[in-house]
Amino acid sequence: MDVREEVKKLDPYVPGRSEDEIANEFNIKKEDIIKLGSNENPWGPSPKAVEAIRAEAYNVNRYPETDLHELKEEFASYTGLDEDNIIISGDGADEIIDVLAKTFINPGDEFITPLPTYTYYEFLFKPYGGVPVYAKWNLQDNVLDLDSVLEAISDKTKLIFICSPNNPTGTLVAEEDLRTIIESTDALVVIDEAYCEYSLQTQANLINEYDNVFILRTMSKVMGLAGQRIGYGLSNPEIIEYMHRIKPVFSLTRSSYVACLATLKDKDYITQSINKGIESRDYLYNEVSKFKNLRILKSYSNFMLIDVHDSGYDAAGITRKLMEKGIIVRDCTSFKGIDEYWIRISIATMEENKKFIDILHTIVE
Amino acid sequence: MDVREEVKKLDPYVPGRSEDEIANEFNIKKEDIIKLGSNENPWGPSPKAVEAIRAEAYNVNRYPETDLHELKEEFASYTGLDEDNIIISGDGADEIIDVLAKTFINPGDEFITPLPTYTYYEFLFKPYGGVPVYAKWNLQDNVLDLDSVLEAISDKTKLIFICSPNNPTGTLVAEEDLRTIIESTDALVVIDEAYCEYSLQTQANLINEYDNVFILRTMSKVMGLAGQRIGYGLSNPEIIEYMHRIKPVFSLTRSSYVACLATLKDKDYITQSINKGIESRDYLYNEVSKFKNLRILKSYSNFMLIDVHDSGYDAAGITRKLMEKGIIVRDCTSFKGIDEYWIRISIATMEENKKFIDILHTIVE
Repeated sequence: MDVREEVKKLDPYVPGRSEDEIANEFNIKKEDIIKLGSNENPWGPSPKAVEAIRAEAYNVNRYPETDLHELKEEFASYTGLDEDNIIISGDGADEIIDVLAKTFINPGDEFITPLPTYTYYEFLFKPYGGVPVYAKWNLQDNVLDLDSVLEAISDKTKLIFICSPNNPTGTLVAEEDLRTIIESTDALVVIDEAYCEYSLQTQANLINEYDNVFILRTMSKVMGLAGQRIGYGLSNPEIIEYMHRIKPVFSLTRSSYVACLATLKDKDYITQSINKGIESRDYLYNEVSKFKNLRILKSYSNFMLIDVHDSGYDAAGITRKLMEKGIIVRDCTSFKGIDEYWIRISIATMEENKKFIDILHTIVE
Repeated sequence: MDVREEVKKLDPYVPGRSEDEIANEFNIKKEDIIKLGSNENPWGPSPKAVEAIRAEAYNVNRYPETDLHELKEEFASYTGLDEDNIIISGDGADEIIDVLAKTFINPGDEFITPLPTYTYYEFLFKPYGGVPVYAKWNLQDNVLDLDSVLEAISDKTKLIFICSPNNPTGTLVAEEDLRTIIESTDALVVIDEAYCEYSLQTQANLINEYDNVFILRTMSKVMGLAGQRIGYGLSNPEIIEYMHRIKPVFSLTRSSYVACLATLKDKDYITQSINKGIESRDYLYNEVSKFKNLRILKSYSNFMLIDVHDSGYDAAGITRKLMEKGIIVRDCTSFKGIDEYWIRISIATMEENKKFIDILHTIVE
């Protein structure tokens, strides 16, 4: 009954803290907490998604349908691709990443991730025996260090993760750089476009040009459905078919299915979410730029990375100081490839943004 | 960009058929379809779960909480165990099975399943390099063939799946037999109690006596939440802690969380679901027993296996004949360890049961 060595090496599990606990510890009201920590859509889900979830609540004693044809049709229309280019998941993009590992990774296979980036690629790939090889982002100029990716490629490389816009740096990768990577390897290049709507562009068309491209997407950000855990992937029909063979069949709940369908059909909601998101980001960027002792990175996403080296605090210190005033931001110390002086803030409503900036002025110059 | 050999060997993916398609093909109204195929709770979810899902719909733009303390407390109370005996999943018991594989299975490790049984153990374990070793159920006497399990144990055995009551046979395994298995091995004995409420008993207390016992449970059956994909597992704190290290963090959606909590608190609903379920099962058992050319197996679950060898049909034939009249039953041919002459029916409302029996009389003697 031995646990696998890979599992023994992982850190012991510590549950996250609930908002209730935070509210209690810092003696603030739960409803006064301003959440700048999780890259969510702060304006709520589409009213049509809310209505759909409420109507479907009476049917949740029945298993989800396994035929996702209608939903794939909507995704096809949204992405300009065909139904057989699409795979849909019920645990966000994370489930798609896990299925990529199950489909492609044998023990000893290498995968490349430029650091710092979304930490879950590594968390999900290591249990399959995948070996991480690190490239890097250039945090000074806020671009991808293309050479570091090309140098990391070996004959063991099975997959390359490029998050664009990148979490947590907000960097958008130039199409030219992506083409250079794709053409330099037979490995599958996974472009994580979880936040692409905020950059007003996508590289999804590359799957029609190249065999080795996979686009990762989610309904958790601009689409306002983080709580329902819907992800999707786009690639050529052969890869999509193989992945369907091994994917969990029922992972998309009934609530998530109807919420997803209703949101994709609500074009006004999507447009407004993008416009309000960009307005909020621009406001935060401009206001934080005025701080003498903070450096904020330009972002194409719904979050921004802030360098706090000169603030008099480390990331943990400033995060705690903000939490005392009811503001949750992300201490980025747990990201690999970055030191303990970076925090990430995500967009909020304009009212919340203003409160945050006012409070920040009381802490840092 | 090679797909793994394990994936290439799997059958190509064919999406399931939706109720709409079935209704169209057989020219019946979707609302007239009687579903005896999926072992669901036919009386709908708890009204308190419905209310909880409807209220939470407005908050689904936020990620689920990762602290499941309150829910674990309810499960602890329901099972008579402690919070640190419990792990909760967001894709049904299937997710727990996948996490068991990720925690324990190295390529070449063996796992034992008596056939016929729930097919997903094998589907989920094989991608990790797990090697199935088959024991068997005695279909004549409808008991577990204990010797076949004991003989299957080798020094490579890592896990033994015993589904009790077993899907699709409805067989309940005697506590004595379980103890014999547990004491014969160091492997983890996974007792799948997805349907245990219908047998009015559980072996959950065995985890306090033995280190190598894991109990698998679900909210999809008696609890009426099949569409929300909630599973849970019970074991000793050490195993539970290791599994939490590697488990997907956010897989339980917001809708599922609140539905689960509300259902566990609705004791009247649970009691009524059990009582009505047993009444429905007894009715179907008695009525099908009257057919000269069918043999129905006694079941401790919410479904029953029917031997149709003497009916003049094979399972596919009788399934299609029933579908033409709007009745969906499960053709069991795809279960390993069983031939093409068995169908499975699950409980329905008494009105639906009566319609089914009437229609069955027009097809078989």
